[in-house]
Amino acid sequence: MTKTRVLTGITTTGTPHLGNYVGAIRPAIAASQDPNVQSYYFLADFHALIKCQDPKRVQESRREIAATWLALGLDTDNAIFYRQSDIPEIPELTWMLSCVCAKGLMNRAHAYKAAVAENEEAGNQDPDKGITMGLFGYPVLMAADILMFNANKVPVGRDQIQHIEMARDMAGRFNHLFKNNFFTLPEAVVDDKVAVLNGLDGRKMSKSYNNTIPLFVAEKKLLKLVRKIKTNSLEPGEPKDPDTCTLFQIYSAFASAEEAEAMRQEYANGIGWGDAKNRLFEYLNEQLREPRERYQALMEDPGHIESVLMKGAERARAEAAPTMDRLRQAVGLGRFV
Amino acid sequence: MTKTRVLTGITTTGTPHLGNYVGAIRPAIAASQDPNVQSYYFLADFHALIKCQDPKRVQESRREIAATWLALGLDTDNAIFYRQSDIPEIPELTWMLSCVCAKGLMNRAHAYKAAVAENEEAGNQDPDKGITMGLFGYPVLMAADILMFNANKVPVGRDQIQHIEMARDMAGRFNHLFKNNFFTLPEAVVDDKVAVLNGLDGRKMSKSYNNTIPLFVAEKKLLKLVRKIKTNSLEPGEPKDPDTCTLFQIYSAFASAEEAEAMRQEYANGIGWGDAKNRLFEYLNEQLREPRERYQALMEDPGHIESVLMKGAERARAEAAPTMDRLRQAVGLGRFV
Repeated sequence: MTKTRVLTGITTTGTPHLGNYVGAIRPAIAASQDPNVQSYYFLADFHALIKCQDPKRVQESRREIAATWLALGLDTDNAIFYRQSDIPEIPELTWMLSCVCAKGLMNRAHAYKAAVAENEEAGNQDPDKGITMGLFGYPVLMAADILMFNANKVPVGRDQIQHIEMARDMAGRFNHLFKNNFFTLPEAVVDDKVAVLNGLDGRKMSKSYNNTIPLFVAEKKLLKLVRKIKTNSLEPGEPKDPDTCTLFQIYSAFASAEEAEAMRQEYANGIGWGDAKNRLFEYLNEQLREPRERYQALMEDPGHIESVLMKGAERARAEAAPTMDRLRQAVGLGRFV
Repeated sequence: MTKTRVLTGITTTGTPHLGNYVGAIRPAIAASQDPNVQSYYFLADFHALIKCQDPKRVQESRREIAATWLALGLDTDNAIFYRQSDIPEIPELTWMLSCVCAKGLMNRAHAYKAAVAENEEAGNQDPDKGITMGLFGYPVLMAADILMFNANKVPVGRDQIQHIEMARDMAGRFNHLFKNNFFTLPEAVVDDKVAVLNGLDGRKMSKSYNNTIPLFVAEKKLLKLVRKIKTNSLEPGEPKDPDTCTLFQIYSAFASAEEAEAMRQEYANGIGWGDAKNRLFEYLNEQLREPRERYQALMEDPGHIESVLMKGAERARAEAAPTMDRLRQAVGLGRFV
C-alpha cells in the first residue's frame, strides 16, 4: 500500500529552456502520474542562494519555474509541489544532520574538490578562495531535503550520485546514534538515457553556455532563436546528416517516431536549412502554443501560483512538522510536557 | 529611546554549578535589571547537539538551566528568555549566512584549529578526524543567534571574541551584497574580572574536570561535597592563607565584604579545616535555601517552565519572523504576492 516516494529539486537560478523540458521536466511530470508513486517536487531556492546573489534573478526564476511546471500540467493534487524555503523544518534538520556529518565527508565532495582544484590551477594561495560555507556544506542541506520526507528514490545525474551516498551516510549515522530507524536510506536513480538537447551553438544547451532557447519565449523570439541555430554550409538539394544536426535533434525530441522518420527522409532529400528551420519553428510553436498561453496567464497571476505553492507547503509540512517533533524528541530537544 | 540589546546563550549540556552561578548567572541576572538594556537569554540547545549525543543529558540540562535562571529571579517580563530550538528562523538565517560566509573564515577558527592540532599531535592521518560539520560551522549558527536580534553587545570570554568578529564579518558582507543595513554589527563585551571559582580538587570548577558543586544540590549532598573540597594539611590553630584556599574563595564569592573580612581573620587565627567547611556549608546552605526550594518546585512543574519558555519564544519570534520576511525579500525568496 505504501507508495514509493520520489523526490526532485529544481534549483531556481535559471529560466526553463527546451533542454530542461526534454531532459527533466517532461519525464518528471510523466513519472508523477504513476499511481504507485508519491512525487515531491520542490523549488530548491535555498540552494539557489549558493550561486546567485542576484535577488531579482532568484525571485523571477522561482516564478518562471513554478509557472512552467503548472503550465505543463503537473498534477498538484497528486504530486506535492512546494518551495524549499516554505519548509522551516528543512534548515532545522540541516543543522541536526550537520552534527552527525563528518567534515571529512564534505572534504571529499566532488564539487568542492573541483573548486579547490580550480583555485590551485589558477595559482591562488588560498585553495578555498571564493568558496562559501554554503557551497562547502550544501550536501548536508541536500540530505535534509531528501531525509525530511523519507524519499526512497532520487532521480539524479551521475555527478550527483555521491550526494545521495552522503545522505545515506548521514541517515545511517543518525539512526545508529539515536537508536531508531528515523530515516529511510534513499537510493539514487540514474537514467543514462536522459535526452540531452544541443543549444544554438551546437554545444549542450545550458544556461552557462548562454545558448538556450527558453521554453516559453514569445513566438517571434522563438522564430528568431531557431533561425540562429548553427548549421553547416551544405546547399539546398544536397543530402544532409540528421544525426549531427541540432535542428533534427530538437525536432525529433518533440515529434512522434513517424514524424521524425519523415523528417529524416527530408534530410536525405536535401531539405534546405531555411526550410528545416521553418519546419522546426512551426512544429515547436504548434506544440508549445497552448502551454505557453497557460504559462503567460500564470505569470500574470502570481497570486494563483502563490496559492498553489502554499497548498503544497501545507501538505509538505503536514509530514515535516510531526517528523521534526519526533527528531527533536530523539536528540533531546523535545518539549518539557 | 532604543535600548541596548545584550544577548547571551547558555549551552545546555551541563547542570549549573556554583562556578556558573558566580561567574555568569548572577551577573547576567543583575545586568538584565538595567532599564536601559533589553536582554536576550537563550538555551543554546542547537549548540548542545555538537558535543552531546546523549538526548537525556541535553533534555535534563535544558530543564535544569531554565529552572535555575527562573529560581534565581530572572525577570522574564523584562528579559526575553527562550530556547534556541523554538526559533525556526535561526537555522534558516544560518543557511543564509552560510551563503555569504567564506569557508576560509571557518578554517581559521580557534576551536577548529585546536581540534586539528590535537589530531595531528595524536598522529591521526586525517586532521579532521572526529570533527563534524556542526563543530566546523558553529560560528555561523552563533552569528545567526546574534544577528537575528540585532544584538549590540555580546558578553563573552576572551576565547569567544573571534566568533563575534566572524559574526561582524558575515553581517557586513550580507549588508554589502544585498545593499542595505539589515544587520547591526555586534560588539564583544569582555569582562576580565569575571569571578572564577575553583572546584573540589582546587582546579577551576568545570564540568570537564568533574569537580563541580551543583548549585541546587540537596542539603545533605551539599555538605558532603563541601567536605570533599581539597585543603592542605595545616592543623587547627595554625594560621592559614585564605588567598590560596578554595573554601575561602567560595565563601567570599557569596559573602559580603564584611563577612569575608571576618572570615579572613578566622584564617589568621588558625580556624580548623573542619570548622571552615562547616561554616562554608552553613553559609551556602542559608543563601541557597530559598532559591533551591523554588528550583525544586520548578523542576516538579515542567509545564510552568514550558509556558514561560513558550512566552519567551513568542516574544523572540515577534521580532525574528518579520526580520526573516525582510531578509527573504532581500535575497529573492519573498512571497509572490
